[in-house]
Amino acid sequence: MSLDEDKLKKFGFIERGPKDAINIDPLQTGGILTEDARKALLEWGDGYSICDFCGGVLDLIKKPPVNEFVHEALPEFIGTDEVRLTHGARESKFVVMHSIGKPGDTVVLDGLAHYSSYVAAQRADLEIEKVESSGNPEYSIDPEDYGQAIEKVASQGKPPALALLTYPDGNYGNLADAKKVADICHEYDVPLLLNCAYSVGRMPIDAKKLGADFIAASGHKSMASSGPIGLLGVQEEYADTVLRKSPTHKKKEIELLGCTSRGAGLMTMIASFPQVVERTKHWEEEIANARWFSEKVEKLGLIQVGQKPHNHDLMFFETPPFYEISKTAKKGRYFLYKELKKRNIHGIKGGLTKYFKLSTYQVGRDNLSYVVDSFEEIIDKYTEE
Amino acid sequence: MSLDEDKLKKFGFIERGPKDAINIDPLQTGGILTEDARKALLEWGDGYSICDFCGGVLDLIKKPPVNEFVHEALPEFIGTDEVRLTHGARESKFVVMHSIGKPGDTVVLDGLAHYSSYVAAQRADLEIEKVESSGNPEYSIDPEDYGQAIEKVASQGKPPALALLTYPDGNYGNLADAKKVADICHEYDVPLLLNCAYSVGRMPIDAKKLGADFIAASGHKSMASSGPIGLLGVQEEYADTVLRKSPTHKKKEIELLGCTSRGAGLMTMIASFPQVVERTKHWEEEIANARWFSEKVEKLGLIQVGQKPHNHDLMFFETPPFYEISKTAKKGRYFLYKELKKRNIHGIKGGLTKYFKLSTYQVGRDNLSYVVDSFEEIIDKYTEE
Repeated sequence: MSLDEDKLKKFGFIERGPKDAINIDPLQTGGILTEDARKALLEWGDGYSICDFCGGVLDLIKKPPVNEFVHEALPEFIGTDEVRLTHGARESKFVVMHSIGKPGDTVVLDGLAHYSSYVAAQRADLEIEKVESSGNPEYSIDPEDYGQAIEKVASQGKPPALALLTYPDGNYGNLADAKKVADICHEYDVPLLLNCAYSVGRMPIDAKKLGADFIAASGHKSMASSGPIGLLGVQEEYADTVLRKSPTHKKKEIELLGCTSRGAGLMTMIASFPQVVERTKHWEEEIANARWFSEKVEKLGLIQVGQKPHNHDLMFFETPPFYEISKTAKKGRYFLYKELKKRNIHGIKGGLTKYFKLSTYQVGRDNLSYVVDSFEEIIDKYTEE
Repeated sequence: MSLDEDKLKKFGFIERGPKDAINIDPLQTGGILTEDARKALLEWGDGYSICDFCGGVLDLIKKPPVNEFVHEALPEFIGTDEVRLTHGARESKFVVMHSIGKPGDTVVLDGLAHYSSYVAAQRADLEIEKVESSGNPEYSIDPEDYGQAIEKVASQGKPPALALLTYPDGNYGNLADAKKVADICHEYDVPLLLNCAYSVGRMPIDAKKLGADFIAASGHKSMASSGPIGLLGVQEEYADTVLRKSPTHKKKEIELLGCTSRGAGLMTMIASFPQVVERTKHWEEEIANARWFSEKVEKLGLIQVGQKPHNHDLMFFETPPFYEISKTAKKGRYFLYKELKKRNIHGIKGGLTKYFKLSTYQVGRDNLSYVVDSFEEIIDKYTEE
């Protein structure tokens, strides 16, 4: 390809099709910008805008109040002694694994861990020991299994450097008993990292109450921020290790490469923060909506797997009625995606009919009702045919 | 601090003071968004917007044309066999150092390297061998010194894993003879990483012609993109190592943690790309503007250090007239910042009067003229007093 004008025409401004759809993709529901964040995005959009105010350390900028945000508000919000901005939850996980573990050490992961937890461990040259879930239909994690996993690893030479629990996991939206996992890990002096990509910014999270030593959180996933941006929470005990500074550049933290979120993402997170704090206070309503939705679609023949009654907006459904239809529908397994698209509903991956996950977060009862009705309409339409 | 409403009021939408100023901060001039990018930012601002279209690998998304952008347009643009998106130049450098070097290996850095090159090496547990510049006034890098540095390291046991050249450096805007550095490194089988944070997107860069094995580039610094976003260019020979995939998640590249720029930043880069390609074709005009500016302010008593005549928009000036004034001015060393602010000129760090760096990139002859006149006016004002 040569960069002639014709080829270049493919780039430039491109419209985003599903921008105004009802989006029930779990990746999307917690990341939709608030109006304030949308304004902040335009205001601070230019490349390095925030650096106009930087004296050498991003999170010490006083005006705008980045320092107060990072060093006071966020630690209070998630319950860790220290917070730093990162590019996302996976980057936070890597920072912890890379600084707490040494090549060849082992990290204990729950069997429902996101792929990025594996990849972060692999990047840090750590071995992985898995705590399996109970499998279908509950996919629950037994905290006691963390003890067994730690003992198994220790018996092979060296105790694990770290344990990680996905809270909740990204497939079933299960919230394991994090406090118990933490207690068991601490019995063995193994620190616990909670991957809160789907919780911080959606529901109340207090790392201290849960006993977590580290928190990984995601701005674009759950804090109404424009990505990539995330949080790393660290308790005092590990702060010196994880946030160690460069011997040659005394103000720069090595694991953050000196600086992370140098642009608009941070300003959208600050812009959304008051509303994000507020919405976590209404988590009970979100759970009620999720349960209501689950009950409604189960009446249509869908089967929610994972914890039941459910405690999170992210849910996984087996969907035999859609699978049956896909066997004979004209558009085959894409019929559902197309029917939903016609109805301005987005977020169930094209081609999936046997099962899918979705999120009810901030969708609201009216729109959820509309989704339920649409599912019913689609099932009826193809069953009558 | 408790997160009560009063405290939360400090966050939310915050205005950006210098948004409409003439900004001559080298960090800012290449990152100002194009109109298309500004539109893209709003269109794609929501958290994970681009992921609506993802089948598991960000850079393989066909519509919008991310695949074509990353795998065809960008490799052509920078002259590497492979390109990946990263969060910025420093993250690209770390990826290369972490995958090419082993703990304890050495990386050779030019003496003008950005702090983030040091910090990236420290994060990857690499030793650093410096190639010193010639110092004041030229601060030039002698390519032959790379050979000596490599031999010195090799004589201590193991040859360096990597060499890095900052092209140009971020203090003086010097463009060393990269081709000669590459040739010398290759004589010793040491691969060369060019840090092009201040060149890719501003001036024509062809890694193959320069002999670079790796390119680190910055979207927010030089490609009219909303940060954080950058590029990593890799030549074929090293692609399997740097872009190795996860053994457990076959599609995911380990060093990228599976995925990097999952949001609006990428779409701003795509939006600006046609104009960015175009502007690199007018690099000669930018050099002419830089030289013109340098000549004009030297007549006022400022002294440009670094290469002369200069070959880049980033320039460093010693500024004795301002320093003299600061000794007696009412506002001391902040007088200059305040005088410039009054004139809507931004980008020279508050408190600096002895020397500063600035960039003339895309500022245009009219605005540059205005900056020169303002400097003159300020000098006159305080000299008359």
